[in-house]
Amino acid sequence: MLYNTAQVFAPATVANVGPGFDIFGFAMHEPGDEVVATLSPDSGVRITSITGDGGALPLDSVKNTAAVAVTGLLARIEAKNGITLEIHKKMPLGSGLGSSAASAVAAVVAVNELLGRPLERHELLPFTMEGERIACGAAHADNVAPSLLGGFILIRSYAPLDIVKIPTPEGLTATVVHPHIEVRTEDARRILRRTIPLSSAITQCGNVAGLIAGLLTKNYGLIGRSLTDCIVEPQRTLLIPGFENVKHAALGAGALGCSISGSGPSIFALSSSLETGTAVGRAMRDAFTSVELVSDVFVSPVNKEGPKIIAMG
Amino acid sequence: MLYNTAQVFAPATVANVGPGFDIFGFAMHEPGDEVVATLSPDSGVRITSITGDGGALPLDSVKNTAAVAVTGLLARIEAKNGITLEIHKKMPLGSGLGSSAASAVAAVVAVNELLGRPLERHELLPFTMEGERIACGAAHADNVAPSLLGGFILIRSYAPLDIVKIPTPEGLTATVVHPHIEVRTEDARRILRRTIPLSSAITQCGNVAGLIAGLLTKNYGLIGRSLTDCIVEPQRTLLIPGFENVKHAALGAGALGCSISGSGPSIFALSSSLETGTAVGRAMRDAFTSVELVSDVFVSPVNKEGPKIIAMG
Repeated sequence: MLYNTAQVFAPATVANVGPGFDIFGFAMHEPGDEVVATLSPDSGVRITSITGDGGALPLDSVKNTAAVAVTGLLARIEAKNGITLEIHKKMPLGSGLGSSAASAVAAVVAVNELLGRPLERHELLPFTMEGERIACGAAHADNVAPSLLGGFILIRSYAPLDIVKIPTPEGLTATVVHPHIEVRTEDARRILRRTIPLSSAITQCGNVAGLIAGLLTKNYGLIGRSLTDCIVEPQRTLLIPGFENVKHAALGAGALGCSISGSGPSIFALSSSLETGTAVGRAMRDAFTSVELVSDVFVSPVNKEGPKIIAMG
Repeated sequence: MLYNTAQVFAPATVANVGPGFDIFGFAMHEPGDEVVATLSPDSGVRITSITGDGGALPLDSVKNTAAVAVTGLLARIEAKNGITLEIHKKMPLGSGLGSSAASAVAAVVAVNELLGRPLERHELLPFTMEGERIACGAAHADNVAPSLLGGFILIRSYAPLDIVKIPTPEGLTATVVHPHIEVRTEDARRILRRTIPLSSAITQCGNVAGLIAGLLTKNYGLIGRSLTDCIVEPQRTLLIPGFENVKHAALGAGALGCSISGSGPSIFALSSSLETGTAVGRAMRDAFTSVELVSDVFVSPVNKEGPKIIAMG
């Protein structure tokens, strides 16, 4: 059966996840973006509409992350068809939740379905990474990989690309609180020092190892002790008013650990149950309120499935 | 039943294990050191003899790693007895195989047994770390912890001390080749640069995470890809003639990966079976021979038990 149109949801993601700068990320169940891809008689990729972005995102196919990703996919499979895309942003931009990643992932998954699934899911990753290059200046995988593949992802290596899915305990729940300020990923990267003390790298490696061991052995105590970033977080918290209060509130409400989501300003916490994660969200929002920041709260178990095909028509 | 004397073996260890500088270590089945501890009417700790060291090690209790460790233990449990120690070095000194660690571990385990086991095995760790401070200038745990506890050990954190035992696949086999040159741990530490590029830390964290994930999921391919040290190995290979040849020979013979054992000059490789590990050892020894270095080869599955009580009397 041939289809003319595919509507796909791709989830928001938390990148870095404490000590795992550039190498860890996991998917949420919500929020996320939706893309409707439609076969077109014209060649190439054209964006017909974007909703939910307040007019901020480019319709130009060479500047839009979803269009760039789909263009790469079409070239790779030597597609004869053209594609039009409708992008429905259902999550905040510049929030540290992988907004550009979710759009690119939803778009390539939709197009791949539409064309009869010429590639495996994981083979779509390089195209979405090119989308990230357009969106934030570097072809990072720590948002696109978990959005595309679901679950908790380790990017062991970028050259060559080596992606490892790490099973997570059933109860593990993420709380993400997004304050209504914007941090540009490029700015958040620019402030980072390019060299670090060897001793900090050793501490970070210990926590990276502890977090992976904690996830794989379902050891919540170890997950919590390991959810510490001694390198990037101390530099980036300057960009997030009230960070220390919010983190303190999260831990006080029972979170295993708490750090910056991606390049911020969103802050995430991990908890051992949905119930605790919900209480943690309330505490974090209240802490933002006390520094006069309005925020949105998302609570979600780790999303092990990734993108969802909503409709084919 | 009360005993007068205890004879204990403690195993050699491979510290660092590729990317895990200062945080990973595992125990071998051999070589190792033996210590005979005997109750003494005199208070304090006295070393009556050391064999196998060629006269290199101090008999003075405040300078000897095993005596320092036992002194700490006796103080902690407020022992009324004194102790005499016979130390039988059955492994090379300054080899990168945790020689000082094995002596300290054998000594405290022997004394703890002799005194009716007042402390749990893991509670002995701090005393052996003080032994390391005497032996090599820093209270590192990456040799003493695996020698004491057996298995593959992650030191997630030093302050507070947080030790995590990582289960390893059954077949995992270590090959260690010790060339007859000496590298002083202090020298090996002194040459290390104190700051590193952030990008190197990210690469190292990816490999640390990959190695832990590979061990816990019995994924030999992932273990092999992750057994890479981009920070310390490139600086220390200068101290080991023929290193690149030996590593090349190990990988050519089927090893999963190969790096420096501790601070060298020993080189270790990991393989997925005892058979491959044995062939890898031959290839590594031949490679050392070709640069005119005589070497000893040890092949051993990961030793999950740790110290062994040989006799009580």
